[in-house]
Amino acid sequence: MAVYTDVDDEELIGFLRAYDLGALLSCKGIAEGVENSNFYLHVSAGSFILTLYEKRVAEADLPFFLGLMEHLSARGVTCPQPVRDRAGRALGRLAGRPAVIVTFLDGYSIHHPEAAHCAQLGAALARLHLAGADFSMRRPNSLSVAAWRPLYAPCAARAGEVAPDLGDIVAAELDVLERGWPRDLPEGVIHADLFPDNVFFLGDQISGLIDFYFACTDALAYDLAVCLNAWCFDAAGNFDAAKGAAMLGAYQSLRPLTAAEIEAFPLLARGAAMRFLLTRFVDSLDVPAGALVRPKDPREYLARLRFHRGIGAARDYGLA
Amino acid sequence: MAVYTDVDDEELIGFLRAYDLGALLSCKGIAEGVENSNFYLHVSAGSFILTLYEKRVAEADLPFFLGLMEHLSARGVTCPQPVRDRAGRALGRLAGRPAVIVTFLDGYSIHHPEAAHCAQLGAALARLHLAGADFSMRRPNSLSVAAWRPLYAPCAARAGEVAPDLGDIVAAELDVLERGWPRDLPEGVIHADLFPDNVFFLGDQISGLIDFYFACTDALAYDLAVCLNAWCFDAAGNFDAAKGAAMLGAYQSLRPLTAAEIEAFPLLARGAAMRFLLTRFVDSLDVPAGALVRPKDPREYLARLRFHRGIGAARDYGLA
Repeated sequence: MAVYTDVDDEELIGFLRAYDLGALLSCKGIAEGVENSNFYLHVSAGSFILTLYEKRVAEADLPFFLGLMEHLSARGVTCPQPVRDRAGRALGRLAGRPAVIVTFLDGYSIHHPEAAHCAQLGAALARLHLAGADFSMRRPNSLSVAAWRPLYAPCAARAGEVAPDLGDIVAAELDVLERGWPRDLPEGVIHADLFPDNVFFLGDQISGLIDFYFACTDALAYDLAVCLNAWCFDAAGNFDAAKGAAMLGAYQSLRPLTAAEIEAFPLLARGAAMRFLLTRFVDSLDVPAGALVRPKDPREYLARLRFHRGIGAARDYGLA
Repeated sequence: MAVYTDVDDEELIGFLRAYDLGALLSCKGIAEGVENSNFYLHVSAGSFILTLYEKRVAEADLPFFLGLMEHLSARGVTCPQPVRDRAGRALGRLAGRPAVIVTFLDGYSIHHPEAAHCAQLGAALARLHLAGADFSMRRPNSLSVAAWRPLYAPCAARAGEVAPDLGDIVAAELDVLERGWPRDLPEGVIHADLFPDNVFFLGDQISGLIDFYFACTDALAYDLAVCLNAWCFDAAGNFDAAKGAAMLGAYQSLRPLTAAEIEAFPLLARGAAMRFLLTRFVDSLDVPAGALVRPKDPREYLARLRFHRGIGAARDYGLA
């Protein structure tokens, strides 16, 4: 959660003049998204979210993210839809930063997902992958296997601050992942960060997906492995086989995995755990002064990595 | 700005069952208020603010604050109005904290008030004082002159971290304020923290006042002195006589100051500057770990205090 940038009322009113949204009624910084500043925006035309992009999001990537949200919205995936100004532009500038207004989605994040929520998530992820199949833009995954060693190296000396054996595990694991990472799996648009925070429910139904700022072109099954890590472990860090089966089953009912994806799944799950272990580790060492953000605990993902290292084959996740 | 407490979706849905507000649609932590956790709450019945009271607000004071907001709302002062549950209770409990739902007010804070905004504020303050005249509850001002020395003493040794002469100025000033503080001015309900953050505008008109959690029973003219400090200095710290005249004139058009209030005003202005200098100084030394809050700069109020010390008489503020 973060609000990094304050928005001046006069600047905001000037910014809104380019849009057909009527008068400013209210604008409040909200604790949503860790990469950007987000605001609840109430104008005569209704409720919206105003996003200011902070430094961690590359401006050159914004057309991909905004284009993707428009593409998915048009294909029935409920996600924030960029609002275009009178000149047809989705991307503006406010408080010295790239800025965009998107539609407001009702719904709330489920803090303790049950198997039924995991099934909903599996189906939503499959629909996202299917709807993204004809999206024409590409963006490489800048946080995939090739990025992990360079991300880790400058911080390796401080691994012991997180856990005594973190350094040994990461070193061994990077070798395994770099050597064995699959290259020829079905690719497409992936969300790459579909944690419970980024999925809205109304009652038992998913009402929307948000925060597409890690979305990229990569192996679809890797996205499923990210979700398995994010949704199917209990608070104590133990894998919940019922949640895993519910998610994987619901995904496969809409998009059956290929034999190669199934075979690769245990390694993808280890890689997904490694990706979040490493970014959480690096973030925990480097909290910017004044940032209104609580770093997440890397040890949760160290525990998941340990679990995946003990998995023999895809059938141990309920895949066959 | 602060969100200290996360609210679990299941707990919130349970909490809402006591109210006639319909289903939960959305709940987002907002960057508003420094003492409490505030959330934008969207339910079937409309938009509201959910407030969780953190430790700095004494639970025993909540009936005063909530009663005051109801009293003022009923007398035409637009402020958040507590929503009562089906059993008629305004105060509930959520996430282990006292919790209240209040009406959502449209409007936005003016970051750079002009003289016209200061006039609006002066009139709104007078209306607040008049509307509070028949409020029957009392709450002493726990941050008035008697509190300043005990607040400062434990931190005095670190005064030099803020400014080389802070210690000397505070020591001399506390003697003057304690000796001369007026005791017999007209009293009533004061807001005591009516900074621009706590005043909403729509266009050029004030649309609402918020954050009554410093409200108390004290000299009405002291509230005006707080507002003079908060609204009538420019970004460089210089007093703006036009803004001062606009605020004081608009206030007096609805509630003329007595001769004793006018005579006491320069000392009240010094006291108001001292109060915010000291709380900002203490807060700047003691940012709680994990708190999502940026401390405000005490030096802004040291500069105001210096200005007020150079004032000879009330006519220097435009009062006569």
